[in-house]
Amino acid sequence: MESKKFLLQEREIPQAWYNIIPDMASKPLPLIHPATKQPLTAEDLYPIFSKAASQQELNTTDRWIEIPGEVREMYRIWRPTPLVRATGLEKLLDTPAHIYFKNESVSPVGSHKLNSAIAQAYYCKQEGVTNITTETGAGQWGAALSLAAKHFGLELAVYMVKISFNQKPYRRSIMQTYGAEVISSPSMSTKAGRKIITNQPNYQGSLGTAISEAVELAMSTPNCKYVLGSVLNHVALHQTVIGLEAEKQMEMAGEYPDVVVACFGGGSNFSGLAFPFLRHKLNGDHAATRFVAAEPASCPKLTRGIFQYDFGDEAGYTPLIPMFTLGHNFQPANIHAGGLRYHGGGAIISQLKHDNLIEAVDIQQLDSFKAATIFARSEGIIPAPESSHAIAATINEALKCKVAGESKTILFNLSGHGLIDMTAYDRYFANDLANHEVTAQEIAQSTKDLEKIL
Amino acid sequence: MESKKFLLQEREIPQAWYNIIPDMASKPLPLIHPATKQPLTAEDLYPIFSKAASQQELNTTDRWIEIPGEVREMYRIWRPTPLVRATGLEKLLDTPAHIYFKNESVSPVGSHKLNSAIAQAYYCKQEGVTNITTETGAGQWGAALSLAAKHFGLELAVYMVKISFNQKPYRRSIMQTYGAEVISSPSMSTKAGRKIITNQPNYQGSLGTAISEAVELAMSTPNCKYVLGSVLNHVALHQTVIGLEAEKQMEMAGEYPDVVVACFGGGSNFSGLAFPFLRHKLNGDHAATRFVAAEPASCPKLTRGIFQYDFGDEAGYTPLIPMFTLGHNFQPANIHAGGLRYHGGGAIISQLKHDNLIEAVDIQQLDSFKAATIFARSEGIIPAPESSHAIAATINEALKCKVAGESKTILFNLSGHGLIDMTAYDRYFANDLANHEVTAQEIAQSTKDLEKIL
Repeated sequence: MESKKFLLQEREIPQAWYNIIPDMASKPLPLIHPATKQPLTAEDLYPIFSKAASQQELNTTDRWIEIPGEVREMYRIWRPTPLVRATGLEKLLDTPAHIYFKNESVSPVGSHKLNSAIAQAYYCKQEGVTNITTETGAGQWGAALSLAAKHFGLELAVYMVKISFNQKPYRRSIMQTYGAEVISSPSMSTKAGRKIITNQPNYQGSLGTAISEAVELAMSTPNCKYVLGSVLNHVALHQTVIGLEAEKQMEMAGEYPDVVVACFGGGSNFSGLAFPFLRHKLNGDHAATRFVAAEPASCPKLTRGIFQYDFGDEAGYTPLIPMFTLGHNFQPANIHAGGLRYHGGGAIISQLKHDNLIEAVDIQQLDSFKAATIFARSEGIIPAPESSHAIAATINEALKCKVAGESKTILFNLSGHGLIDMTAYDRYFANDLANHEVTAQEIAQSTKDLEKIL
Repeated sequence: MESKKFLLQEREIPQAWYNIIPDMASKPLPLIHPATKQPLTAEDLYPIFSKAASQQELNTTDRWIEIPGEVREMYRIWRPTPLVRATGLEKLLDTPAHIYFKNESVSPVGSHKLNSAIAQAYYCKQEGVTNITTETGAGQWGAALSLAAKHFGLELAVYMVKISFNQKPYRRSIMQTYGAEVISSPSMSTKAGRKIITNQPNYQGSLGTAISEAVELAMSTPNCKYVLGSVLNHVALHQTVIGLEAEKQMEMAGEYPDVVVACFGGGSNFSGLAFPFLRHKLNGDHAATRFVAAEPASCPKLTRGIFQYDFGDEAGYTPLIPMFTLGHNFQPANIHAGGLRYHGGGAIISQLKHDNLIEAVDIQQLDSFKAATIFARSEGIIPAPESSHAIAATINEALKCKVAGESKTILFNLSGHGLIDMTAYDRYFANDLANHEVTAQEIAQSTKDLEKIL
């Protein structure tokens, strides 16, 4: 009987994160200070982020960055995570493809987000920070950071996108159970929030707005730092534990992926799984392996956005980031995959996409839930709406293999489970969900002033 | 660095379930046919259960019962489950006790219930059954059986206790995502349901009533069998994979438990963890190890019920079971630990309790949520309200060790996670939950006619 799960021992949790930048022939463009228009220094970031995160953000030379002992210690709560051969799904699809998934849903908060939350909370604690703040969309990141903050004894305030705050009370409750304060965003507690509420009283919030509020709170509060769950280089760095483990586990399975798939919001889980495999491609091995980012059709920055400097947040507090973007004021449809409702990709991802080293595909909301249901019924795990985009893209690849009679090896990231997203499934079964198209005109409108930013 | 998790390989999933009856000097009393008042035969059970389950129910001779290959194959989706050293909890409590927990919450439906659901669905399928039916309280069992039924291609109808159907829509959605039909109980679809609705239009349902409805449906529907999630001997049998794995893992940890703790509703997770360890005690080894069943103070059958033949359901359709019971018409308070709201313990458990081979403690609802919050913040996992009773009992034991300066080894079962029970946590934090006392008079009332049953 072939193994279904490939498991590592605790001692095999990676000792170092992988920084892809040293291996990139074509480096990402620098982050730019919005006031001086000069490339950022780590010192520029110190008022917002921990020093360690700031330095990691701009580190273009060290390929391996040691994971602190206390971070690895906490990773042991749930890591290493299983690599699973999706035999049930293969059988259902009747495909010659071999499908594997890295099961990041087994973390106590149900997603991969904890990998970076722990690291960032740890560095803040080390540097004497007492309070941290962040944003969250659907709540996966906020839940993860709440657990990490409690572990390291930090007070945490989370700005949660208003529509999720109201529609997803379970994730709010999880954050509160771990001891965090959760604020609906936009809120009256910040200038950025007050301005939006005044202009648009019924605005349902966005990740971009919530980031603005959290950054403003951090910059105006003594001994308080801001912590981000995606997009930035140091977040992608922390998430590489996913791919580094998966690499060993694929070896145990005796295979190497021909296609690596992950859903794409700001890039955290995609980068985490893909970069350790991509390093071989960058170094001339496994040149044929493809890397596919699955984004929602309603927020198609990689497939239809423009490559341009843009802000990471709605109010324009962040550094300027070179990104594939739909514009920092783009308001995506209220799809249930809240974690994918972000306007841009990070600097590394955007460069890789620009250089055709990775691909992107659009997934419609209804196709994502159809794929999710197929997966739940064949593999037993109800996936998060975000991860369901990766499953849909994987199924498409597996069906192409079936048509072509090719036995490719596909690896995707199950970034989280959907047990806290059941209202979304209810709506899907009740035919109460829709696809959301973005018109070329809307994108032209939301990106029209970007070239003036820099 | 000591290990935090103790992991087994897939090949170490047990090959056989452990049947404790052959090792019991004092055997459980027989199940009795309610019409003939004679001890039941397997044939008597065939109209209700699969033949294999019926035979296992009455098997008093075979110590080991082979786990079918297809069942083990499906166990590999998530088994073996981790044994975890609760270092965070130990530190928080500042106790010399060593605390371990078996983490059954990692199953795709979030609880141990899948261990028996798979076995029972498999046997039904093998015997050519096409439809199965069951009851569920909070929904853990119904969710597990929904997944198992889908896997083996069986149609499933779940009678869900009305109050949970309305209060816990997420678990209902999970069952529907796996393809099951979910009916609020009491319902108009059965005689038992109609009778109750007619007499008590606002009755919020109970496990006893839902069992009556499911049994009635099975007996009145061609090629349909009933499947139960707890109480009966064959369910306890299937759950012993928990303790058999834990036994190997405690060896890896180099310890043997002085105290084994699990929450107690009908006995499925308690039996599953305890019996494999109890067998050593029954055979003269590790005589000092204690076994503690943690039941809710609002449904105290083991601590305050009477040992008497009683029905397993409200309408009186089931065989007569020798049990510690509060009476089959006992209506427990609507605590959030819906899986513990059952009036009696099974035949084996009740005999063991009668013979003082196991102990029971009562846990108040507020103490269970206090313990749950402590555990979530120290170990990172939000426990199910049911499992929180085991955690509260474990904390009590660990604090006794602290007072006595004793370094005992405590093992408890984390039977499920609470990510689908967040409304309960919300209510706890809002001071909107209460303890529920049962008066001696209420118990006297609900048990007064029991002696006339046989």
